[in-house]
Amino acid sequence: MLPPSSVDWSADRRALRILDQRALPERELFLELQALGDMVAAITSLAIRGAPAIGVGAAIGLVVALQHASEGDGTRARALLPPYARALAEARPTAVNLAWAVGRMTARAATVSDGELLAALTDEATAIASEDRAMCESIGVHGLPLLADGARVLTHCNAGALATSGIGTALAPVYMASARGQRVAVYVGETRPLRQGARLTAWELSRAGIDVTVLPDGAGASLLAAGNVDVVIVGADRIAANGDVANKIGTYAVALAARANGVPFYVAAPWSTIDTSTESGAAIEIEYRSASELSPLPEGAKSWNPAFDVTPHALITGYLTDRGLVQPPFSASIAASRVGHGGNPAMAPIDIPPDRAP
Amino acid sequence: MLPPSSVDWSADRRALRILDQRALPERELFLELQALGDMVAAITSLAIRGAPAIGVGAAIGLVVALQHASEGDGTRARALLPPYARALAEARPTAVNLAWAVGRMTARAATVSDGELLAALTDEATAIASEDRAMCESIGVHGLPLLADGARVLTHCNAGALATSGIGTALAPVYMASARGQRVAVYVGETRPLRQGARLTAWELSRAGIDVTVLPDGAGASLLAAGNVDVVIVGADRIAANGDVANKIGTYAVALAARANGVPFYVAAPWSTIDTSTESGAAIEIEYRSASELSPLPEGAKSWNPAFDVTPHALITGYLTDRGLVQPPFSASIAASRVGHGGNPAMAPIDIPPDRAP
Repeated sequence: MLPPSSVDWSADRRALRILDQRALPERELFLELQALGDMVAAITSLAIRGAPAIGVGAAIGLVVALQHASEGDGTRARALLPPYARALAEARPTAVNLAWAVGRMTARAATVSDGELLAALTDEATAIASEDRAMCESIGVHGLPLLADGARVLTHCNAGALATSGIGTALAPVYMASARGQRVAVYVGETRPLRQGARLTAWELSRAGIDVTVLPDGAGASLLAAGNVDVVIVGADRIAANGDVANKIGTYAVALAARANGVPFYVAAPWSTIDTSTESGAAIEIEYRSASELSPLPEGAKSWNPAFDVTPHALITGYLTDRGLVQPPFSASIAASRVGHGGNPAMAPIDIPPDRAP
Repeated sequence: MLPPSSVDWSADRRALRILDQRALPERELFLELQALGDMVAAITSLAIRGAPAIGVGAAIGLVVALQHASEGDGTRARALLPPYARALAEARPTAVNLAWAVGRMTARAATVSDGELLAALTDEATAIASEDRAMCESIGVHGLPLLADGARVLTHCNAGALATSGIGTALAPVYMASARGQRVAVYVGETRPLRQGARLTAWELSRAGIDVTVLPDGAGASLLAAGNVDVVIVGADRIAANGDVANKIGTYAVALAARANGVPFYVAAPWSTIDTSTESGAAIEIEYRSASELSPLPEGAKSWNPAFDVTPHALITGYLTDRGLVQPPFSASIAASRVGHGGNPAMAPIDIPPDRAP
């Protein structure tokens, strides 16, 4: 039993339908958005979040907003496309899937006439969403061998169903193992300041009947030292060419503690998260968020509130993708996957060197 | 300008007066306690917290509660002493100062007649409080060389004035440097789940006019990796004979990140925090606290909420005590310090090997 889809078309396909993640776990509130400004606000305020879900949301949102503003007129829609695409792509700077999905939509637009534009973009957004679901399934299949029966998994933030339009990235192997009747227990850091671990990961796993335990972010290192974790699996917002990973703030500390205690640390993400134009983590732009997320604070106290951190590739055991468990450099595989797919990663498994296999 | 004393006698010396730390930073609420049950509740609920402050509070609280319940009758007070002492000593299991202070009170009781009992215990509690203030000053003096002008200090939780009856332990060098006109900036992890960093450390430093910045606990590793920290100084609830340190949950993760990024990591604590009867961190009993501290959690989600973690001695650059900056093994120095002081640590500086000096 999975949670309802976090991002999809509305029933009449005239709106972007999202599960408002700000309201969870108290309420299951769905929003149907048509206006560009509302979509940008939904992304900025984390009503929709998770790199793959943001990509799908931006793709569907772009065509919906264009349809709405142009009243179905392809020529007007084409004139609106560049500023609309830019506004969505820039709503959050760190998640590469957002720019990737928007870029794929604009590339598709360049191949069709004005009269075909809205239909082609609808087709492309539908493809992006359906490939996202397939990507999740594929990560789950490739990740299954990491989980023995009774496995205890530590994750961070939410890289689950709520972060994608499918069964998640880091949690995909967990859902697959559970569906096969394996016992699996998940630990998740609360993930301050916005508590995505406590609110979202705990909610979706608990709703799926999977054993889930929340801990303060500072306790992850202790949990690892206590021998309570068999494997760490986290998501990624951007993976640089050298394998450095930008993910939710707190990930790097977990990776250090996993290494110090001999526990394998995997990053699960779609190929589209790999950004070969970014050489290393040092070049990844990190989003800083408002002090209000840490409130209440005493008068006069300042805050330092980065949304993401960078985990150096040396701390990462392997990269669990829809193309298998891989290692950097990724460039050769990515170049191949882009041929004929408009940047869309292919699903064929690639060879993994035996010493990297789980 | 320091915050008001967090633990002291009331003006008429018939009650224990504490600043209720649960109400900070919103309100400065003082409680005057006379009954044993109220004192145990104040310790358990963290109205008073911080290992040194708990020790002082238990000492004053013990004599106040005995005075109150015995109506000044020494024979009745002596009969009540064992159960009262036990109730206070067991209010929190990890902070060794609590058992140390209560043990010192009962040892003093054994040396006097019933008629002298309450006066002797009053004298002993007063001595414990005044030595605690001197201990803080001494840690500050010994820690000053760690802070260059403009130093950026990362700490965790609250080991400041609020955690002692003086100027704190980890923050003592900060207050001293600031009083001398040095510029100093302090970063502090929020310290979930009870937010002692955000509520208490930020409050007392901000009130003292010292630059303070709060970060999510998961961001400490990033802050260190960014090169924004010159030195880490944290407190301790218990130091084992081999130098392993129990301190607020999250400390171990900061220590790992400091080591990975080449930043020195100091533990500041009174000698009374060193427990030579505990061989290593593995033998330290860790207090687990209620899931309610992590609420709200989704239905069905469990919690893992240890109050403390253990930082292995190998990650600790030095131990900043009222006797100087030292290294394990501590046993010889402690044995010496106990002679003629009823367990009270002497203030004389000890020799530090040149390669350990700051």
